[in-house]
Amino acid sequence: MTKEKIEPYFQILREGRDATENVDNSGSDPSQLETEVLADVVLVRYGELALKSSGIRDWYEKLLMKNIAAMLESREIPYSQIRREWGRIFIETADSRAAAEAAADVFGIVSTSPALTTEPSLEKAASICADIAQDIIKEGDSFAIRARRSGNHPFSSADIGKACGDAVWNSLEKNGVNPRVNLSSPDKEIFVEMRQKLAYIFLETFKGVGGLPLGTQGSMVVLISGGLDSPVAAWLMMKRGVMIIPVFCNNTPYAQSAARERAFDCIRQLQKWAPGHQFRTYEIPHGPNLQSFIEICNRKNTCLLCKRMMYREAYEVMKKENASGIITGSSLGQVASQTAANMHAEIYQLAIPIYHPLIAFDKTEIMDIARKIGTYDISNRSAGSCTAVPERPEIGANYDLIMIEEKKMDIENMVSNALKAAKVFKL
Amino acid sequence: MTKEKIEPYFQILREGRDATENVDNSGSDPSQLETEVLADVVLVRYGELALKSSGIRDWYEKLLMKNIAAMLESREIPYSQIRREWGRIFIETADSRAAAEAAADVFGIVSTSPALTTEPSLEKAASICADIAQDIIKEGDSFAIRARRSGNHPFSSADIGKACGDAVWNSLEKNGVNPRVNLSSPDKEIFVEMRQKLAYIFLETFKGVGGLPLGTQGSMVVLISGGLDSPVAAWLMMKRGVMIIPVFCNNTPYAQSAARERAFDCIRQLQKWAPGHQFRTYEIPHGPNLQSFIEICNRKNTCLLCKRMMYREAYEVMKKENASGIITGSSLGQVASQTAANMHAEIYQLAIPIYHPLIAFDKTEIMDIARKIGTYDISNRSAGSCTAVPERPEIGANYDLIMIEEKKMDIENMVSNALKAAKVFKL
Repeated sequence: MTKEKIEPYFQILREGRDATENVDNSGSDPSQLETEVLADVVLVRYGELALKSSGIRDWYEKLLMKNIAAMLESREIPYSQIRREWGRIFIETADSRAAAEAAADVFGIVSTSPALTTEPSLEKAASICADIAQDIIKEGDSFAIRARRSGNHPFSSADIGKACGDAVWNSLEKNGVNPRVNLSSPDKEIFVEMRQKLAYIFLETFKGVGGLPLGTQGSMVVLISGGLDSPVAAWLMMKRGVMIIPVFCNNTPYAQSAARERAFDCIRQLQKWAPGHQFRTYEIPHGPNLQSFIEICNRKNTCLLCKRMMYREAYEVMKKENASGIITGSSLGQVASQTAANMHAEIYQLAIPIYHPLIAFDKTEIMDIARKIGTYDISNRSAGSCTAVPERPEIGANYDLIMIEEKKMDIENMVSNALKAAKVFKL
Repeated sequence: MTKEKIEPYFQILREGRDATENVDNSGSDPSQLETEVLADVVLVRYGELALKSSGIRDWYEKLLMKNIAAMLESREIPYSQIRREWGRIFIETADSRAAAEAAADVFGIVSTSPALTTEPSLEKAASICADIAQDIIKEGDSFAIRARRSGNHPFSSADIGKACGDAVWNSLEKNGVNPRVNLSSPDKEIFVEMRQKLAYIFLETFKGVGGLPLGTQGSMVVLISGGLDSPVAAWLMMKRGVMIIPVFCNNTPYAQSAARERAFDCIRQLQKWAPGHQFRTYEIPHGPNLQSFIEICNRKNTCLLCKRMMYREAYEVMKKENASGIITGSSLGQVASQTAANMHAEIYQLAIPIYHPLIAFDKTEIMDIARKIGTYDISNRSAGSCTAVPERPEIGANYDLIMIEEKKMDIENMVSNALKAAKVFKL
């Protein structure tokens, strides 16, 4: 169902059929004008929270409502109230479609539906269904009523289906449209969800991003390079409720300033998914470290030593920020240097909690998510390559050799100097 | 396109139209019988390998062909040859449909198509397209030719499209079917891929599992519990080319023997995805460790200490097997104990390379994969709970306390005893 098909019906029911000028009223039954719509709302469904204990669920739901409110505010969508009833959140708003789309982008949400509310009676629900049918069901269309009920009512779901179905049938017949019911694959569906205090009637459902409410799983540091992978890795962990602390290791003079801009733009884009939560972004000067590796160690080990140093720096930020882990965009075997042996060498003897959410992802899967979250075009911008990368990087690292290389330098001091020179931003 | 619609055409072209009894030949043009089909093949497409250097690509492709052969053999699908040409693998087989479905289940494969081969001429391709059209295009259907070309030919892709399209058009007209071309969303598509030595004609494409050839990314240990998550985690890493070494920590007497059977059945199911590669499965007695934790440490820390011990044991197996990492089925926030803080406590001060491919997955996503790979029903079998789990497990672990708890025991000795009593199976 397209926006065009649905909008008039919301407008009609909101403003009263008489008030609507751009809709063809010919053949409409004047009795339908008495349909009483109480409000426009968005039905918000969330999944995994249902599994949690009541204390945790209460906390999760409150955070979810706060995050929904922040998302609506960030998109300037007006709403009057966000409330919850067992297993559902409701947004009262005059722009239920925009609000439903915005809420679907909030982590923890399974799906949303713009809906109309009325009294929880068969008569009111049937009357609204009949009214809706006039607008959306055309000659040749089959239809179905999808009824659902929770709470105590003197009728069953089947009764709702029958009452609303009959009302639609009669309404169509009166308007000269041949009614045709098809329960298995109808052209048009009208959903009626009858709850204790109110009935909700809706036509469409937006798929939400899923996951857990942002902020429920503590915080983690994420190494953001600005390339395709790391923003996707960050987003996936945000989806699981983790508040991120972005760390950008600035490789100047081995990288261009465009790389910094690109990374920062990726972080700004991620920030759009976290309204109400302000990231603290760290920029750590990493060039001096690279210089040491190039001058002191075997050239083919530069990238390995660089990665190990980034992990150590990120670990310091992690401890400082009381965070619980470090997120990377590494994906096994994606490039020649991302072998299992190299990835082991990257953390050999380092007791650092590292998460690679993309470890088992294919490149095409990563690209699909990057497009969805809005970082694809940013990451695809040319920002030059790191000139510290050797012509032939190591692909089967010898762990002991790496240890020996590192002993040639004062690693602890290098980490501490980098952290002292780090800057913290709110982007 | 359904199996029913396509099978007759393959049969016709394989056996000659006259030989087919159960197909309506009325209206067929006798000249079409001269269509010369050289062989049935499967076109196999693989993606990420194209990005690799020629040496790595050669190795990957050879392994891919070996893995395809093993998959065909494990499913008892006969084939005469598996060969490669730049960017494609071809399976010569009399059962191209079954072979295409089997090859689509081989890690590294992007897609497969059962195809017919003929000489790379416009005339032969057009003649086969015309013949196919008679079987698959009915009155009211629109069609399109999708042409592709690589190599040197005296014609372009557009020429192929035109020649085959014209042949289909004329063939339909002769048979009293009104031809209707629709390039944007046709009801039926015929694909023609013209290469240097042969032309390939096909109707359908099976989506492959993707990833990288199994065996290209070394090996890793995977902690298999038999629950829903760990087999999915193992499969995802296999998909990225990792050969797995399953480790089952047997919690007897705190677990039932059904748990062991369930875990072993999951491993057997995973083995079906790795024909030609024999897993070495470790079973490690973990009950004595649990007993120590229960007797010596605060009860609420049992699960944390258990997990840390499993990681240590898995690490010993990893070193012994010359593997590069340890895979778990952990997913952040899925259960109360999988908080970021707890997951950090699980590896606090342990320098062990751990991979959690499901870390950012929702439960519903994990369930979908479990169904696809055939472990869902096994994991869903009741196998009793671990009775060592305390009533209220820790959810916000204090790292230093865990260290103090471990100092009360001879951890090193416990690990070494467990490994000494470990058994290795080929399931």
